[in-house]
Amino acid sequence: MIEQIAILGTGLLGTSVGLALRKSGYRESIVGWNRTAGQAELALSMGALDSIATDAMQAARESQVVLLAVPIYATLDYMEQLSTILGPEQLVTDVGSTKAQITTAAGRLFNAPDRAAFLPGHPMAGKERGGASLADADLFRGAVWLFTDNPNWSRSPRSAELARAWRECVEAFGSRTIDLDPKRHDELVAWVSHLPQFVATALSALLEEEVGDAPELKDVGGRGLREMTRLGASPWSMWRDIAYTNTEAVERAIAALEQRLAYIRENLRTPELRDEFEKANRFRQE
Amino acid sequence: MIEQIAILGTGLLGTSVGLALRKSGYRESIVGWNRTAGQAELALSMGALDSIATDAMQAARESQVVLLAVPIYATLDYMEQLSTILGPEQLVTDVGSTKAQITTAAGRLFNAPDRAAFLPGHPMAGKERGGASLADADLFRGAVWLFTDNPNWSRSPRSAELARAWRECVEAFGSRTIDLDPKRHDELVAWVSHLPQFVATALSALLEEEVGDAPELKDVGGRGLREMTRLGASPWSMWRDIAYTNTEAVERAIAALEQRLAYIRENLRTPELRDEFEKANRFRQE
Repeated sequence: MIEQIAILGTGLLGTSVGLALRKSGYRESIVGWNRTAGQAELALSMGALDSIATDAMQAARESQVVLLAVPIYATLDYMEQLSTILGPEQLVTDVGSTKAQITTAAGRLFNAPDRAAFLPGHPMAGKERGGASLADADLFRGAVWLFTDNPNWSRSPRSAELARAWRECVEAFGSRTIDLDPKRHDELVAWVSHLPQFVATALSALLEEEVGDAPELKDVGGRGLREMTRLGASPWSMWRDIAYTNTEAVERAIAALEQRLAYIRENLRTPELRDEFEKANRFRQE
Repeated sequence: MIEQIAILGTGLLGTSVGLALRKSGYRESIVGWNRTAGQAELALSMGALDSIATDAMQAARESQVVLLAVPIYATLDYMEQLSTILGPEQLVTDVGSTKAQITTAAGRLFNAPDRAAFLPGHPMAGKERGGASLADADLFRGAVWLFTDNPNWSRSPRSAELARAWRECVEAFGSRTIDLDPKRHDELVAWVSHLPQFVATALSALLEEEVGDAPELKDVGGRGLREMTRLGASPWSMWRDIAYTNTEAVERAIAALEQRLAYIRENLRTPELRDEFEKANRFRQE
C-alpha cells in the first residue's frame, strides 16, 4: 500500500530507516535526499535507497510516505513547505528528539481531512556520532519508538491508513511503540535522554581540563569511565536544537541532579549515602 | 619462584586473580580464604583455587605471596595482623581502591629488610556487582593496574624479587602497570573512577524518584541511559570505604561537576554550550 517512501535527510537515522525497511521486507521504492550529496550517495551505495532525488519537494510530492530525518528546526521548516504541496493521500512522519513544537505544528499544518497527515515520531536510538556511514539496519531493534499522535485529529481514511502502515513498519524494525502526550514526551526525554547527555558532556569537559594533559591517565578509569563519557563525543550540532526546544525541562532536570550531587557530597560519611545507593540500586533492578 | 599464593578474599577480584593466574600459566599452589565459606567454595569449583584454607593467617604464613582482596578497612586490619607473623621472604599485595592510607601503613608495618614486603596495588577493573560468581580470567585484560610503590623502601633481596615477580604476574594477566605516588593516585581515581560512580548513583537515584513508578519508561532512554546508570547498581558496601578514605578528593571532584552542570544549565541557549561540547569531544578523541 506504500508505493514510495521519501527519506529527507540520509544521515545516521534516515539511512538506518532505509536499511531497516529493506531488512524487514519492504520491497517498493525508497527515494532519498540530503542537503550534502555525499551522504545520499553513501546511503545509496549501502542499499538504503533506490535512488537519489535532485529536489526534496518533488520527491515528497511523488511519495505516499515522507520521512523527515533532519534536525528539529529543519523539520519545522520542511513541515511548512510540505503542508502546502501535499494532499490527503499522503503521510509525513519524523524522528525529531523533542515533540512539543513539532506536534503543535502538525496540528496547525496537517491532520485535517483535506490535508496530508503528520504522525510525530521519535525513535529512542542513535549513536554518539552521526552520519550515513554508521547506519545500521538493526539500530531500532529492541528500542522504543515514541509517537505523540493526537486522537482528536481528523485525517482522511487513506492518510489514517498510511499512519497505521508506518506504525507497522516501525514494529517490523524491531521497535516497541509507545504513545505519549507531547508535553509529557518532552519532560520524560529530558530525564531519560537529555539529562544523561548533558551529564556526559559536563563530565567529559571537566575531565578534559583535569586529566586532558596526561592522556595515558584517560585509560585508567576503565569501562566505567568509558561508558560514562561515551556520549561526550556527541557533537553540539546534534544537541543545539534539543537545548533550544526543550530548555525548561532540561534546566529542571540538570538543577535536580546538581542538588542530588550536592546531597551525596555532603553525606559521604553519613548513613544517608547508603540510602542513595539503595535508591540507585532499585532503579537498576530488573 | 612462587610456590604458593594465598588469596584472602575470594569475591569478584580475588577469584578473578586466581583464574587469571591459571590462565597465564601459573602452575604452583593457590590457597584461598573467605569470610563467608560459600564464596571460597565457589572459587574452588571454578578452578580459581587449589584448596580452601580454614585459617587465613595460617595460609598466609605458608605462602610466598599473600593477596589481600577485601575492602579497604579490612585490608588495613589484615596488614596489622600479617605484619607480626610474616617475614622477609614474603610479599603481601592488595587490590584496594584508595592507596594513601594503605601505602602509609605499608611503610610503617612492612618494607624493611627484616620484614615482609608490601606492594600496594589497584587494578582498574571491576563490575557493578561483586561476588565470585561474576569472576572472569580476562577481567584484567586491557586494564591498567596501578601501583603506589615507594622506591625508598628497603626490602630484603628475596622479597624485592617477589615484588618483581608479582608485577610480572599482573602483566601476564594482560594489564598495563603504571606507578603513581599514593596521594596522586587517590586524586586521580577521585576524578576518573569515584566521580563517575557517584554521578551514576546520583542519576540513578534521581531517576528512580522521577520515573521509578513507570517502569515501562525506564526502557525509553536506550543504550545511553543504560550505560550512564549501570554503575548505579553498585552496592554501598563496595563504596563505603572509598567514600571514607578519599573524602576530600571526592568532595572536590563532585563540587567541580556541580559547577560544570550549573554552567551548562545556564548556557543552554548561548554559544558557550558549543564550547562545552567541543571540550567534551576532545576528551573522547582517540
